[in-house]
Amino acid sequence: MWEQLAPVGRDPRTGGYRRHAWTPADAELRAWFREQALGRGLTHEVDRNGNQWAWLGDPAAGDAVVTGSHLDSVPDGGAFDGPLGVVSAFAALDELRARGRTGSRPLGVVAFSDEEGARFGVACVGSRLAVGALEPERARALTDADGVTLADAMRRAGHDPEGIGPDPERLARVGVFVELHVEQGRALAELGRPVGVGSLIWPHGRWRFDFTGEANHAGTTRLADRRDPMLTFAHTVLAARKRARLAEALATFGKVTVEPGGVNAVPGRVTGWLDARAPDGETLDRLVTAVEGGARERAARDGVELAVVRESHTAAQWFTPALRDSLAARLDDAPVLPTGAGHDAGVLSAVLPTAMLYVRNPTGISHAPAEHADPRDCLAGVAALAEVLEGLVCR
Amino acid sequence: MWEQLAPVGRDPRTGGYRRHAWTPADAELRAWFREQALGRGLTHEVDRNGNQWAWLGDPAAGDAVVTGSHLDSVPDGGAFDGPLGVVSAFAALDELRARGRTGSRPLGVVAFSDEEGARFGVACVGSRLAVGALEPERARALTDADGVTLADAMRRAGHDPEGIGPDPERLARVGVFVELHVEQGRALAELGRPVGVGSLIWPHGRWRFDFTGEANHAGTTRLADRRDPMLTFAHTVLAARKRARLAEALATFGKVTVEPGGVNAVPGRVTGWLDARAPDGETLDRLVTAVEGGARERAARDGVELAVVRESHTAAQWFTPALRDSLAARLDDAPVLPTGAGHDAGVLSAVLPTAMLYVRNPTGISHAPAEHADPRDCLAGVAALAEVLEGLVCR
Repeated sequence: MWEQLAPVGRDPRTGGYRRHAWTPADAELRAWFREQALGRGLTHEVDRNGNQWAWLGDPAAGDAVVTGSHLDSVPDGGAFDGPLGVVSAFAALDELRARGRTGSRPLGVVAFSDEEGARFGVACVGSRLAVGALEPERARALTDADGVTLADAMRRAGHDPEGIGPDPERLARVGVFVELHVEQGRALAELGRPVGVGSLIWPHGRWRFDFTGEANHAGTTRLADRRDPMLTFAHTVLAARKRARLAEALATFGKVTVEPGGVNAVPGRVTGWLDARAPDGETLDRLVTAVEGGARERAARDGVELAVVRESHTAAQWFTPALRDSLAARLDDAPVLPTGAGHDAGVLSAVLPTAMLYVRNPTGISHAPAEHADPRDCLAGVAALAEVLEGLVCR
Repeated sequence: MWEQLAPVGRDPRTGGYRRHAWTPADAELRAWFREQALGRGLTHEVDRNGNQWAWLGDPAAGDAVVTGSHLDSVPDGGAFDGPLGVVSAFAALDELRARGRTGSRPLGVVAFSDEEGARFGVACVGSRLAVGALEPERARALTDADGVTLADAMRRAGHDPEGIGPDPERLARVGVFVELHVEQGRALAELGRPVGVGSLIWPHGRWRFDFTGEANHAGTTRLADRRDPMLTFAHTVLAARKRARLAEALATFGKVTVEPGGVNAVPGRVTGWLDARAPDGETLDRLVTAVEGGARERAARDGVELAVVRESHTAAQWFTPALRDSLAARLDDAPVLPTGAGHDAGVLSAVLPTAMLYVRNPTGISHAPAEHADPRDCLAGVAALAEVLEGLVCR
């Protein structure tokens, strides 16, 4: 399966992947999923939100056991984030069949649509729409960098955007969802364990900081006469890092734009996006309030205006505790880990029993071409997933 | 004249100008210059490098007195930077004619091509080519943001790029060049004087700082495991400002790019451009060396690689001292001012006697829509230019 997936959406320059929602690369991945389903004699369906399902048994029977992840990527992403969960799902299903242990519950493999949000700026679009956490109207109006709306992108890819929205009947058939994912940190590597179980997704969000000063000539404007928002931005980057360290949380400025952006112009406006995450909601609130407060103080010194807009926010998402504990016990007391990364399993945790398995990532690098998992650990992941699914379908 | 120029290349949203070389807006400005020349019965020529000349008398007679500036603008530039010098040149010529004081030397008005370098990244292209300070081969290969070469842009605008290059015969006919320009600082405003005389253009240059770390997931990579080049960049921005202040020089980061540039990705690379200027070459060298040294120290702490490339550098350009002094004396002891901004007069100072006049800018704002000069000061500028030209042509 990996060999077929390897070339799709790969940038030959970096070795990273650009598998953005509703692009030709995405269509190739969808065709691959369909082939995998049909080749195994499974039923294949695409739901109203573009999520793909492959079924062993009749999902209408209800109380289904579902596993899977997503196939899309961030810009220049790694090979494992997403696809590892889908490939492992098919492989685990093969393993259960080989053992004759497919049980009595319907068994499904799912690939959620547009998990990374790399193209339209909102993550987990397919699962959020399904649980009603994203308004269809808002989703259709999302635009990519070229000004193409999500609705138009869906239409061009042959999917009807008018049909998107909550899908409670489909979700009601699912008794439990287990997502396997490459770990996006080094906790398992440090513990020397190939597989772990998820406890929660940290609360997290995204805040846009607009620093507005006054554009001017870099060659003639005296330093004392400047209102340079680049200074305020730079101060805020360093302060956010320091405050995150003290709070044992995470803060990142990964995107910045400058106007007018000329080499010989003092900027008139600098916009930076803060990604912040913390173990609990209170810590996150305190962190962002402190970063914003420090930025305002510095802005006043620099003669700069500051506007802060919260662009997205997700509260802590806990995976089902009893399920978590039984999985960990079944997997030889696998370590139980929190994560700062969002996942479809987190979105579904609002309406379904959910669990996550993580596979060791030796360097912890993720969302970059160097993201990696050893083949042996991938096989350990499949074995763990098969073990867990067997326990669920043959309970 | 201002009424005809006002709408050309104006962005209705900001009120700023986008008059980039060899664009339709540039063609309109060129047509305007030609009309002004022909309407006054002057001879109009476009030289091999695209610079426009209007002549009273026969330039072949030599020892000509030339005044003018440029008509192009930076992105979202003001109305005065450039055009004030060309409009004032025509107005001063009208004044001399009205007085019957056009003298015996040929009198020329010039508009240099592509002074700002806003489109192709190199400033003073028209004058640099003429004096041989820019290789024609290199100039032709310059590209704009859409990948269009300067050669193609010239061709599309009806100018032959194969003909560009040094123009010593034409320059040999010019006995003296005086450029009038809106001041790009507040020195005249603080001195309460409408017009000043230029002493020198500060040495200045542009350095590209490539900070390379490791792209990673912003939600899962522990702070201690990161190699985040945004931190090193931010530190360098603040350090450059501080060192420039201590050196009584100028340092600006007005442009930055980030890869991959995702809100939820720790950057893998941040590139920032340093524009630095100082009263003398030694101070400039010390400043840039100190900024680079500080950046390297911080880079080592952040686990980031740093590469610094000098993209351009211009030594101090002194205007002709005797000319400067006689102009200042003739203009009621006008203040004599250095500037950090490059000008065609600075380029020509290498091969010709040159001088500059500055007109007061109450806010000092330049390269932005708020750039301004009072009509009364503009008229004072014309009067000063006419006075200076009269002294030169009727000496």
